[in-house]
Amino acid sequence: MGRLISLSIFSVTFYMSMHVIKRVLIIGGGFAGLNAAKVLGRSGKVEVILIDRMNHHLFQPLLYQVATAGLNPSDIAVPIRSILSKYRNITVLHGNVNSVDLKNRKVHTNIGEYHYDYLILACGVQNSYFGHEEWMEHAPGLKNVVDAIAIRRQILAAFEKAERTNDPEIQKKFLTFVIVGGGPTGVELAGAIGEMSRFTLARDFRNIDPKLTRILLIEAESRILTSFSENHASRATRDLESLGVQVWTSSQVTRIDADGVEVGKERIQAATVLWAAGVKAMDLNKKLGVGLDTQGRVIVEPDLSLKEYRQVFVAGDQAHFSHQTGKPLPALAPVALQQGRCIARNILLEVARHQRQEFRYVDKGQMATIGRSKAVAEIRGLKIKGFLAWIIWIFVHIYYITGFNNRILVVVQWAMSYLSYRRGARLIY
Amino acid sequence: MGRLISLSIFSVTFYMSMHVIKRVLIIGGGFAGLNAAKVLGRSGKVEVILIDRMNHHLFQPLLYQVATAGLNPSDIAVPIRSILSKYRNITVLHGNVNSVDLKNRKVHTNIGEYHYDYLILACGVQNSYFGHEEWMEHAPGLKNVVDAIAIRRQILAAFEKAERTNDPEIQKKFLTFVIVGGGPTGVELAGAIGEMSRFTLARDFRNIDPKLTRILLIEAESRILTSFSENHASRATRDLESLGVQVWTSSQVTRIDADGVEVGKERIQAATVLWAAGVKAMDLNKKLGVGLDTQGRVIVEPDLSLKEYRQVFVAGDQAHFSHQTGKPLPALAPVALQQGRCIARNILLEVARHQRQEFRYVDKGQMATIGRSKAVAEIRGLKIKGFLAWIIWIFVHIYYITGFNNRILVVVQWAMSYLSYRRGARLIY
Repeated sequence: MGRLISLSIFSVTFYMSMHVIKRVLIIGGGFAGLNAAKVLGRSGKVEVILIDRMNHHLFQPLLYQVATAGLNPSDIAVPIRSILSKYRNITVLHGNVNSVDLKNRKVHTNIGEYHYDYLILACGVQNSYFGHEEWMEHAPGLKNVVDAIAIRRQILAAFEKAERTNDPEIQKKFLTFVIVGGGPTGVELAGAIGEMSRFTLARDFRNIDPKLTRILLIEAESRILTSFSENHASRATRDLESLGVQVWTSSQVTRIDADGVEVGKERIQAATVLWAAGVKAMDLNKKLGVGLDTQGRVIVEPDLSLKEYRQVFVAGDQAHFSHQTGKPLPALAPVALQQGRCIARNILLEVARHQRQEFRYVDKGQMATIGRSKAVAEIRGLKIKGFLAWIIWIFVHIYYITGFNNRILVVVQWAMSYLSYRRGARLIY
Repeated sequence: MGRLISLSIFSVTFYMSMHVIKRVLIIGGGFAGLNAAKVLGRSGKVEVILIDRMNHHLFQPLLYQVATAGLNPSDIAVPIRSILSKYRNITVLHGNVNSVDLKNRKVHTNIGEYHYDYLILACGVQNSYFGHEEWMEHAPGLKNVVDAIAIRRQILAAFEKAERTNDPEIQKKFLTFVIVGGGPTGVELAGAIGEMSRFTLARDFRNIDPKLTRILLIEAESRILTSFSENHASRATRDLESLGVQVWTSSQVTRIDADGVEVGKERIQAATVLWAAGVKAMDLNKKLGVGLDTQGRVIVEPDLSLKEYRQVFVAGDQAHFSHQTGKPLPALAPVALQQGRCIARNILLEVARHQRQEFRYVDKGQMATIGRSKAVAEIRGLKIKGFLAWIIWIFVHIYYITGFNNRILVVVQWAMSYLSYRRGARLIY
């Protein structure tokens, strides 16, 4: 506390014209929260407290690589504290938000109560099982490092269990992997499991042939990657099939249990079912008492603030922003990143007694990768596929990974995996 | 099974003179078991089944680096399956041994029953609390990856908890780390925590000063590193003290609970107590019904076999071998490695109708490192300390780390940590 007070005294003297240093509270250290914090940290003109349930920022687009043993957690996760340590006006806290008291400008957490002048909510989303919450235990989703490690354990253990039985039915069940949901996460997971079974594990077993692994990607819509062009979706389907993935479109999962899934009337015995089909808003949103869309996202004004509480902003997947195109912006990292920065700039403008500005999303395109050396990318109208798309995918991802240390290590690790088809993080623990 | 049978048929034809291919069962994939398997795998003359509770071989001398966030688990752990995949006569199984039926040459495991012609027991040891098993929950030991991740979580969380309280007593408790046991593991853990608090975390917090962290290394004997020379032990003590570690020798821990430890009549409030004081034999040993020493280790013959069952061998920390010096050999990786190879060679000699040979340990020396760039080493009578010892320490460890992939990555990671004082794996999950 002594330090905060002395910092405040210093700052108060320095920015005497403002009388009191404003406190900005940021909930969530994802792309939105972290980038807001950086802009505010660089300015030095406000006090910032960032609270996150995890102690690390996660580069979520590569989380499927941790789940499939291609990368280590620390390659894509960096302690928030160490990213922001150079900004002396930022305090990082490791805690859970229970509720927000918008009227009294207070946030209640498991580690205490925090008052704010400005609040930035950037809590993201959670997995949604469309009302079938009982499916969760049989079909884990991929949202954080703990999920990824658990999925990795499950995938690797399935091969081990298949190896030690001689019953062909049981072997088949352990060697069947079902991925529900054909968006980018589902496509990337299926491709990575296909590659692992065809190449990485090919020679490791004696009693089973990992190349006979059956991988099913199940999508309710008429095609996968609905946010991409039709041409790209069919290219991705062919690439997946070359890795042994069967793509079932227009297929609705009607049941998931410990032994597999049902698609309509068809039963598939599978020891591993992974969920990549949908997300929903955090429970916190309902407790706010403000306008939500049908998916539970918080509807925001053109400057990303709440209509009723102009000092409260919402960013990233938690927000519904439809002022630009009439449709809500997609749940992508660049959207969250740009929104976080915009909010920070607006707070700084207001503190300096200037007008806020409206948020404008600059579309940086989207991409998905299918196994080793194949990808699809759509960048500013340009449609690229195959190896070139994959190279672009690599560079974009490396560029955006936070932390110099990690960036080089991830390149080294990737180069090695590329040369050796190895997946070094194949540990069950 | 089809594969095993066809392999056997091929081998039987090839080694007709031997009539039947012998089956060697190896329990444990540590230094002893893995190196025995490699020698037997290269020969191709026997069938090998290796069973381990974990799916990975662990480079245990660096485990403390995982516990202190300097390395990732996959930097020092490699799937046993992938190390041995090129040897088509080896089957690796992931399972737990319940008991050994020495008379009927069978091993009972949770994944089935396995018959053997030769058995190699290389199960290692477990932590010992000298009869105070109730201390275990408050003072975890460091034996496997799960332990290391749990200790890492506990150390990092202690700093987080200290940061979010304003009660100086509670802060002090969270910033006090007690390591019980002044052997190499205890010394390396204490040094790494000292370095982390003085350098890595120094600027990351606002409410606490990690440099005020108190680290106590408690040793019951009159000095630390009793297996090293007195000169080296006092150098290590000075190096530890320069990292802020207080070394208490001739101090007996009399109580460990959730709030700290008691040393004689002195009470030390500490949120983190780590156990590096002792190990004991696996419970399996007692069930064997053969000769054990006072510490529960299996007493072996000059060729590492059991007196009553000459086709059963014991290696590594599980064995008591005193035929060379009159004293049992120390529990070091080189001892286990050399014993594993010797057993494998003896089995191959016997299969080829030659005499077995006695085991001779070739002493490769010992070393311990204290934080960044300091170490003590004793190699073939040569006593080295300081930076040179540390460089030797690095090269010896890199040389012995299994798997090419890992070796380069560990060097890159070390080089980076060295340049930046960072510890990249500072994740709480």
